[in-house]
Amino acid sequence: MEKGQADFVAGKRSGITPERLDDFKRILGEKYVIGDELSLKDYAHDETEHLHYLPDLVLKPRTAEEISAVMRLCNQYRIPVTPRGAGTGLSGGALPQLGGVVLSMERMNTILEIDERNGQVITEPGVITEVLQNAVKERGLFYPPDPSSRGSCFIGGNIAENSGGPKAVKYGVVKDYVLNLQVVLPTGEIIWTGANVLKNSTGYNLTQLVVGSEGTLGIVTRIVLKLIPLPAFDLLMLVPFRSLEKAGEAVAAIFRAGYTPSALELVEIDALLITRKFVDSAIPVTEDTEAHLIIEVDGNHPDALMKEMEAIAELLSGFDTGEIYFADDARQKEELWKLRRRVAEAVKIDGYTIEEDTVVPRAELPALIRGVKDLGRRHGFHAVCYGHAGDGNLHIRIKKEGTANSQDDPSIIGALRALFELVRDLGGTISGEHGIGLIQKDFMDIVFNKTQLKLMRDIKKAFDPGNILNAGKIFDGE
Amino acid sequence: MEKGQADFVAGKRSGITPERLDDFKRILGEKYVIGDELSLKDYAHDETEHLHYLPDLVLKPRTAEEISAVMRLCNQYRIPVTPRGAGTGLSGGALPQLGGVVLSMERMNTILEIDERNGQVITEPGVITEVLQNAVKERGLFYPPDPSSRGSCFIGGNIAENSGGPKAVKYGVVKDYVLNLQVVLPTGEIIWTGANVLKNSTGYNLTQLVVGSEGTLGIVTRIVLKLIPLPAFDLLMLVPFRSLEKAGEAVAAIFRAGYTPSALELVEIDALLITRKFVDSAIPVTEDTEAHLIIEVDGNHPDALMKEMEAIAELLSGFDTGEIYFADDARQKEELWKLRRRVAEAVKIDGYTIEEDTVVPRAELPALIRGVKDLGRRHGFHAVCYGHAGDGNLHIRIKKEGTANSQDDPSIIGALRALFELVRDLGGTISGEHGIGLIQKDFMDIVFNKTQLKLMRDIKKAFDPGNILNAGKIFDGE
Repeated sequence: MEKGQADFVAGKRSGITPERLDDFKRILGEKYVIGDELSLKDYAHDETEHLHYLPDLVLKPRTAEEISAVMRLCNQYRIPVTPRGAGTGLSGGALPQLGGVVLSMERMNTILEIDERNGQVITEPGVITEVLQNAVKERGLFYPPDPSSRGSCFIGGNIAENSGGPKAVKYGVVKDYVLNLQVVLPTGEIIWTGANVLKNSTGYNLTQLVVGSEGTLGIVTRIVLKLIPLPAFDLLMLVPFRSLEKAGEAVAAIFRAGYTPSALELVEIDALLITRKFVDSAIPVTEDTEAHLIIEVDGNHPDALMKEMEAIAELLSGFDTGEIYFADDARQKEELWKLRRRVAEAVKIDGYTIEEDTVVPRAELPALIRGVKDLGRRHGFHAVCYGHAGDGNLHIRIKKEGTANSQDDPSIIGALRALFELVRDLGGTISGEHGIGLIQKDFMDIVFNKTQLKLMRDIKKAFDPGNILNAGKIFDGE
Repeated sequence: MEKGQADFVAGKRSGITPERLDDFKRILGEKYVIGDELSLKDYAHDETEHLHYLPDLVLKPRTAEEISAVMRLCNQYRIPVTPRGAGTGLSGGALPQLGGVVLSMERMNTILEIDERNGQVITEPGVITEVLQNAVKERGLFYPPDPSSRGSCFIGGNIAENSGGPKAVKYGVVKDYVLNLQVVLPTGEIIWTGANVLKNSTGYNLTQLVVGSEGTLGIVTRIVLKLIPLPAFDLLMLVPFRSLEKAGEAVAAIFRAGYTPSALELVEIDALLITRKFVDSAIPVTEDTEAHLIIEVDGNHPDALMKEMEAIAELLSGFDTGEIYFADDARQKEELWKLRRRVAEAVKIDGYTIEEDTVVPRAELPALIRGVKDLGRRHGFHAVCYGHAGDGNLHIRIKKEGTANSQDDPSIIGALRALFELVRDLGGTISGEHGIGLIQKDFMDIVFNKTQLKLMRDIKKAFDPGNILNAGKIFDGE
């Protein structure tokens, strides 16, 4: 992988001639073909640290038909195309490391229909996730997937990465809500992947193939999501644990006792203390502990919820906990969630710039946490852990003194490889919700053999015979 | 599609020479290579009416490695292979219409591990679904997908068809529980499709591509399923409606009011009366009605459930209902479920042998039901409707006087095409949970265009370059 050093002359790298430029302007209107250096710089990075790749051109289409016309041209002339949502990705999936065209979905930002009769929403991909959530909430409906970046990320990007978030433990991830997708294929055809129905055994599941394919198989232009009734009540608590491993064990115990919380998050004490420096909060953090769990239950019957929360608290008392903080009202709940959501940003500012998105079977969390600490000692790095413990999805942020704290630092690569091998040996895999993109693809061999990777490459070829769409993400071409 | 007329000479149609026969015996042991006419006949049909295709050979492997060796041979010599579960399918997916080898999974019938710590079960494909459900239930765990044939169908077949059943309305279908699959590819390699984790954004979702692929992409040899805590309580009621359309409207109203029943089934009065002839039952069926809904709620808090059931009953009183029957105890509940589960079998015996597995957005049920009746008048057939109304998944059973009541009767085909066009126009599709197999594939053009079908065929080629595995199911080869 080569670091992108800016090349500001449009087309120099990717065959965009003046004729093609005119074509794009004809298709989209001059205003939506962006080639000036300053503007291009905005599209050269996402939220993945240290990556910077300048596109040759940014195109801002408004319709699937415009995208179709663009793709036909790019396919004909083999111009690399990189689709982009809000640029909040954590694996570099929206970066044009081969130059060429970035296709920004920012203008396709309309919620087309909230179908209350069927509990579905039809939306364009450039709608901000939180905007979509609030719009359906006003109708008493609920779209649960809830990444930390929900205030700025696009729903289309969530589909590309199969995002999760804290609610996934009870409600599932993005893939569990996508019923049907309108997709522009790399060759320009516009298709729907399925139907707007809750059950479907009609042909191969193209919908689920596109979800999580990181913009490599097609460009999603319309999205049909399932919605569920909005639960009327929730309760939230923060539970300190003197031992990180005990916190991990408690997570498994909650499910074994028959409870399914609507959120079950773990934050290591270092991460929480760092975050508190950035978030003005009255929430009591118990310092002589190793980790806190944030536990939420939701439903329609407040008495039943209260019983459930008390039973969970009672259960946890067997795991060496400190004093439990119950968030009493909407303000306290929001404050606690804000603290949780800002952990990633805070620890990143604190120098933990390398983030790994590991996932293991839930009961293996203590082994994973123990293993991470052990690897840190052996490889000389510090790590803080936090994430969606109920799903076994642990974000591990790493820093190592005396390095650039970059994923491709030679003194880090070995440690990361050892970490991912540990994850695999525990029955897990290397990304739970952030995707592979550019930064994990060199580790794909740890969890997939040549046969599996060949199948994926052959599927890519079936969709994109010219290998022009987000090529070199997830895996290299053959 | 050609009706299979039996050819009892092994290999005559499919190139199984005496050498290959010896190879199979060497791989599997002589006992598990079946070629006598009487035994072959058992494998010539499933539960799809009117279809009969005799295999040349039946092989009964015990391990993935044996299957791998078989597939390498069959791929080399281009011998057609049809995988088969329990033969309860309703679309002909397990039938060897090209002759060749049937690969029966009946000996691969071990539940390998119930992992209580992680809420997962690892099983072989030949385990009967109900056996699996009961085994995990004993540990307080729940595997919800629940086809009517659960007492005899195999879990592997459920994966092939992406089965559903009554619980799907709250708990989802098979695809929502499959975490990882061990698959023997048509070329003989053995792979896992994913990892045993609840969240996964690592490469393309091969798992979801195999689920519902009707045994055309690979042979599933191990299955990792997610389990959830078993709800402690449920309540069940039977609600008669004077109007079929009102029953359909009531279904949508229940969800719009914020309730998610754990089952929401519709049975038309004709179907219920026919079934009662076959099932000895004290359950009151209100005759001067058009349909009944069976409604179940489940959860851990009996008071909350009782309130919910009462609120639903109150809501339904606005839809011209008759007297509601509440199943009071386990025996009455089982009796009501038995009545529901035996509907398909009863109406089939009564001559309704053509079954269509339509699915539409839930609120379109009244329009679908009205449309079916209208088509019946125009095309001269009788239809009874029943099924999973909460999912919009309506089974439509048809009979037409003076015909063989077979799907390929020329006087029926036109009516079916009109029915599927109606389903498509309502936003639905042609199979919700039974699959396409042999009997629906001539209708695939109604819901998919050439581009979509080409993508599916190209995916098939990526998995099965020799086109030997269950070829001619879902779609014809090019």
